[in-house]
Amino acid sequence: MIHSLSLSDVLAEHARSRPGTTAVVDGELRLSYPELDARVSRLAGALAGRGVGGGDRVVWLGQNSHAVLELLLACSRLGAVFCPANWRQSADELRFVLQDLGPAAVVWEHSDTLGALDHDERWVRAGADYEELVAGGPAREFPQVADAEPVLALYTAAFDGRPNAALLSSAALVAHATSLLVVRQMEPGFTFLNNGPLFHVGTMMFCLATLQIGGTNVFTPAFDPEEVCRLVDAERVTQAFLFGPMIDAVVKANAGGKYDLSSLRFVAASDEWNAMITVDDSPWCRSKMGGYGQTEVGGMLTFLGLAEGGAGYAGRPSPLAQVRIMGPDDVEVPAGEVGEICARGKTLFSGYFARPDLNAEKLRNGWHHTGDLGRREPDGTITFIGPKLRMIKSGAENVYPAEVERALKSHPAVADAAVIGVPDPAWHQAVKAVVALREGAAATTEELIEHVRGQIASYKKPREVVFADEIPKRGFTPDYDAIDAAHGGGNYPGSA
Amino acid sequence: MIHSLSLSDVLAEHARSRPGTTAVVDGELRLSYPELDARVSRLAGALAGRGVGGGDRVVWLGQNSHAVLELLLACSRLGAVFCPANWRQSADELRFVLQDLGPAAVVWEHSDTLGALDHDERWVRAGADYEELVAGGPAREFPQVADAEPVLALYTAAFDGRPNAALLSSAALVAHATSLLVVRQMEPGFTFLNNGPLFHVGTMMFCLATLQIGGTNVFTPAFDPEEVCRLVDAERVTQAFLFGPMIDAVVKANAGGKYDLSSLRFVAASDEWNAMITVDDSPWCRSKMGGYGQTEVGGMLTFLGLAEGGAGYAGRPSPLAQVRIMGPDDVEVPAGEVGEICARGKTLFSGYFARPDLNAEKLRNGWHHTGDLGRREPDGTITFIGPKLRMIKSGAENVYPAEVERALKSHPAVADAAVIGVPDPAWHQAVKAVVALREGAAATTEELIEHVRGQIASYKKPREVVFADEIPKRGFTPDYDAIDAAHGGGNYPGSA
Repeated sequence: MIHSLSLSDVLAEHARSRPGTTAVVDGELRLSYPELDARVSRLAGALAGRGVGGGDRVVWLGQNSHAVLELLLACSRLGAVFCPANWRQSADELRFVLQDLGPAAVVWEHSDTLGALDHDERWVRAGADYEELVAGGPAREFPQVADAEPVLALYTAAFDGRPNAALLSSAALVAHATSLLVVRQMEPGFTFLNNGPLFHVGTMMFCLATLQIGGTNVFTPAFDPEEVCRLVDAERVTQAFLFGPMIDAVVKANAGGKYDLSSLRFVAASDEWNAMITVDDSPWCRSKMGGYGQTEVGGMLTFLGLAEGGAGYAGRPSPLAQVRIMGPDDVEVPAGEVGEICARGKTLFSGYFARPDLNAEKLRNGWHHTGDLGRREPDGTITFIGPKLRMIKSGAENVYPAEVERALKSHPAVADAAVIGVPDPAWHQAVKAVVALREGAAATTEELIEHVRGQIASYKKPREVVFADEIPKRGFTPDYDAIDAAHGGGNYPGSA
Repeated sequence: MIHSLSLSDVLAEHARSRPGTTAVVDGELRLSYPELDARVSRLAGALAGRGVGGGDRVVWLGQNSHAVLELLLACSRLGAVFCPANWRQSADELRFVLQDLGPAAVVWEHSDTLGALDHDERWVRAGADYEELVAGGPAREFPQVADAEPVLALYTAAFDGRPNAALLSSAALVAHATSLLVVRQMEPGFTFLNNGPLFHVGTMMFCLATLQIGGTNVFTPAFDPEEVCRLVDAERVTQAFLFGPMIDAVVKANAGGKYDLSSLRFVAASDEWNAMITVDDSPWCRSKMGGYGQTEVGGMLTFLGLAEGGAGYAGRPSPLAQVRIMGPDDVEVPAGEVGEICARGKTLFSGYFARPDLNAEKLRNGWHHTGDLGRREPDGTITFIGPKLRMIKSGAENVYPAEVERALKSHPAVADAAVIGVPDPAWHQAVKAVVALREGAAATTEELIEHVRGQIASYKKPREVVFADEIPKRGFTPDYDAIDAAHGGGNYPGSA
């Protein structure tokens, strides 16, 4: 256990190393690291008193709050697993999550949907009841919990329509946070405004990196541009969870320069934005922000900031992870070829909660299979192609619809496209494209096929193109079952 | 094994992610990451062919060379342990190391001492013989080695006159490298000049951080100021192993600006130096460089760069480690009190090679006991006091000689001081100081006792002060046995 460093350990160290640093700001509440540490110990004691033990689940249903971080840290101290669930889901979806996790405690904020669910003695209302719980917790010591134990469950990956809870250990979260410290060049004094949803890894990962470096986490219930401006000004925030349209909204809210946003060190955007903030030159901010990631890798697997000028749209791997682009037989494909993005390393999740079969499949042969397609470019950078939803088998060749769709959509006349496999007596399957053109645009089948051939291997080009008004969707991806049914798809490898 | 990331894995990833990056420069030799990866695989295969297996030791005896990094990485690939030993030791000391480790292979450079040792078929001469070994290695795959396995052995900690080999795992080395990436804000493109001895953790830790971020390691046999200038200029070096007098020597060698050293991003020093280089503003360079460290924690345990303006001389802990200041009963002492610096976390060593009793003692109760005294200041920063060589028991109180010596030496008249415990019928021991005054300076016993009382707790002040011309030393520390014998010391806790 001498090598173990749990989230609880990180907090315990900061309580000693940074007694004068504000750990948490949430409305009127301000907690130094020693105060946060003391509250987390009392909360852990109170949860233990309510029967929460090692491996038990604790659920938060509500907007952003200091309670999210406290519950996570208390679960780390106890060896329990914390799940900040998406409180905006339907009653049916929420019931699924609660049944799936079987939590030993639920802390919730009122909403019409949440209020109408069945409550029992495991439920604690956020606000006064939660504060009472913390205040009543006994002052006690907890034995060390190994950092390999899962501590955070985030729902994601609805492969079959229902989501799965990715389990992240303290070791993975600490490693991922450290990778952000490297790429974002975070230093003590970093102040993060948690204005994105904490049930999503995108906000949670910066919250935890801020904890890791001993910075300050400011919580606000949700994104409100004016409130973001006010908090940045008042708390001298270094970074918030902002991109594209959110940045535009902040610029608009701060028209006239009512608030001083110069403490924000962030990516360049419009001239107005750049004039309000301090444009940061860390790799994370200097490049186009981001990379490729998913909850199962702790957040980011590749960083654009580690591949400036690189060919791949997703950058280079985290210094704490490995990436392989694998063929369907789990053999690495050569650079330039598309395959499934697979990952291994310190930031990886520990499988999905209570999904042994899925875990065996996703984690086979010592690699996590992300379910996403990518390509290693000749310069070693990674391009993210799209989700690996289907594979078409044409002769001996594997064709991934997402790659062909990407090529089709790069044609200026194409608004949307979906690619399916249709049974073929000679080749097992043939590639068929369903294309929705932009309003007023025109393109022939031959032209589109030639366009695809100019971009990817010839055997991947559609043999047939049909036009449709729109592509039916399931979430963000084509509804392949519906498209197969409408356009004669079938004979997929592995199908009966 | 999905969470494992060995040094060999880091190299294997870079071979894919950075095919165009130079990994190693050594004289005429330049290796890209794929070339280094291929050489390491062949070397590992050749070593395996010579009988080197999991857990076996491989020793390097020579100056800095690309071979040091290659042997370390080949041992990681094989699951063996690599020891770059201090080749400048006496024949007797070298024989001790070789007998202690029982290496399965020794790669050596000629020196009079090394040439006179007994050689057998395990010995391979650096240079042509080593190159032949690499060239003859079979191209083969190696099974994954868990990153918790020890991979590097560095001799240190000569507690009883003979050194002990601290074993560092890949996991610890990767974690420590990552902590340097954070504090030094290292980015891809970082080029490190290995001009300090690679048998010491101070140079090795930056070599490995450079590997971790996919930068370039330049090797030069030893420190030569003119050659440092030439290499910085030619290879656009970002950082070299330089401090104090070495910086002065480089400035002198580059008088007239013969070489362009502007690629060096490093700490400010003299005006001349600052004008030659680019003064860096990462936490590592912005503050006074360094902190507190030792081989057993992978290098650095605390960083000054994480505690700008802090009270403690050693800064704040690494984001990947915990520090406790413990009393002799292994209970944490309050802030402001001196105790032993103890550590836990991702960068920690795995014990000393073949020292089960010492390991049980040093790693007791889940913490590594550094053998050094420190104090947590009220602001949470750490002050390093000195080695914990002795403890004096006076009444119920523990008095560490190093703390009292530090207080004495802060008096302007004092050149050196040693503090011992003398038997006392009432208090078990009494504190006695032996003081060497600066030439021409004068101070009375009463004055020195008052001076100490003004700085530390009154019970720690010497009851008696005697003056001596000089303090006998063993290495850098007082020879307490000799001083006890000369001045009546004895009755130490634990002594007969």
